[in-house]
Amino acid sequence: MKFCSNCGHPVTRVVPAGDNRHRFVCEHCDRVFYENPKLVVGCIPEWQGHVLLCRRAIEPRRGAWTLPAGFMELGESTREGAQRETLEEANARVEIGELYTMVNLPHIDQVHLFFRAALQDLDFSPGVESLETALFAEADIPWDELAFRSIRYTLEWFFADRREGRFITRTEDLGPTAPMPQPRG
Amino acid sequence: MKFCSNCGHPVTRVVPAGDNRHRFVCEHCDRVFYENPKLVVGCIPEWQGHVLLCRRAIEPRRGAWTLPAGFMELGESTREGAQRETLEEANARVEIGELYTMVNLPHIDQVHLFFRAALQDLDFSPGVESLETALFAEADIPWDELAFRSIRYTLEWFFADRREGRFITRTEDLGPTAPMPQPRG
Repeated sequence: MKFCSNCGHPVTRVVPAGDNRHRFVCEHCDRVFYENPKLVVGCIPEWQGHVLLCRRAIEPRRGAWTLPAGFMELGESTREGAQRETLEEANARVEIGELYTMVNLPHIDQVHLFFRAALQDLDFSPGVESLETALFAEADIPWDELAFRSIRYTLEWFFADRREGRFITRTEDLGPTAPMPQPRG
Repeated sequence: MKFCSNCGHPVTRVVPAGDNRHRFVCEHCDRVFYENPKLVVGCIPEWQGHVLLCRRAIEPRRGAWTLPAGFMELGESTREGAQRETLEEANARVEIGELYTMVNLPHIDQVHLFFRAALQDLDFSPGVESLETALFAEADIPWDELAFRSIRYTLEWFFADRREGRFITRTEDLGPTAPMPQPRG
């Protein structure tokens, strides 16, 4: 941030009075600009023991498999966001169930939320951000070609909890690490 | 938003290519500015069956009682944010436990998360944003002077679940409503 989005004057980086951290501040119109982590919302669409995955058509991680998920938008709930992303990425209708995982990624200022979800029909297909969409049994999950660690974490817990016959809301904090191997394009 | 925070030129409101909703866009430097909901993180600090509440010294809802909570900051996890807010608002140390409630407020673009937490000692006191801090038994909770609906929702479920002897992660969507009555200042 270099300029005030309200008045167009250059901003400075200071600790405002009564605050305890540096913010972008406009000394011309007195605005303080707060930056906050972003929510990514998605789901695990289930159909007769299978899970719907999407192969990404866009960077980052083009060619890798993901659960349908994306940045939460203004004016929606977390469940509505997960439902919308599933429609956009897989042209798929889901009934969103309980919150299942919350994965913190503080090094990139993101929090990922995944809900359990019931896929409503088999009329799905790749949206503009997907190369492929497909149902996977547990034995066929492409573990080495998953797009993000939050996806791997969510799927690993999902199948483990399913074997136990009960699902518990799971929270995990993931720090920076070496990049995952590039999937086959 | 009126001006580009990158180059200072006026922004326009358009649907960018490949997108499906209006964004602020700078046609001078080609930046797209996304706006996303904010996370509020807090906790239910427990001590021998009592819960720590703070009476707000700031607007909105100055004078009303709240669980310690506030906007999540960059570079922290949701648990770290809840812990930090408890230290700032009540000078209190907590061990953060499981995620307990997620309350969506899409009309104000916020998602509130509350964790269960164990208060570590009785050396708490009002932070600069609090007028008072106190432990409350269930029978003494000031139900008519709570600051926000997400606080009421969280405390109501907390005591109900405690009576049942088990806690379940709870999700709720709250729409706009009439403002709550103004508390005694």
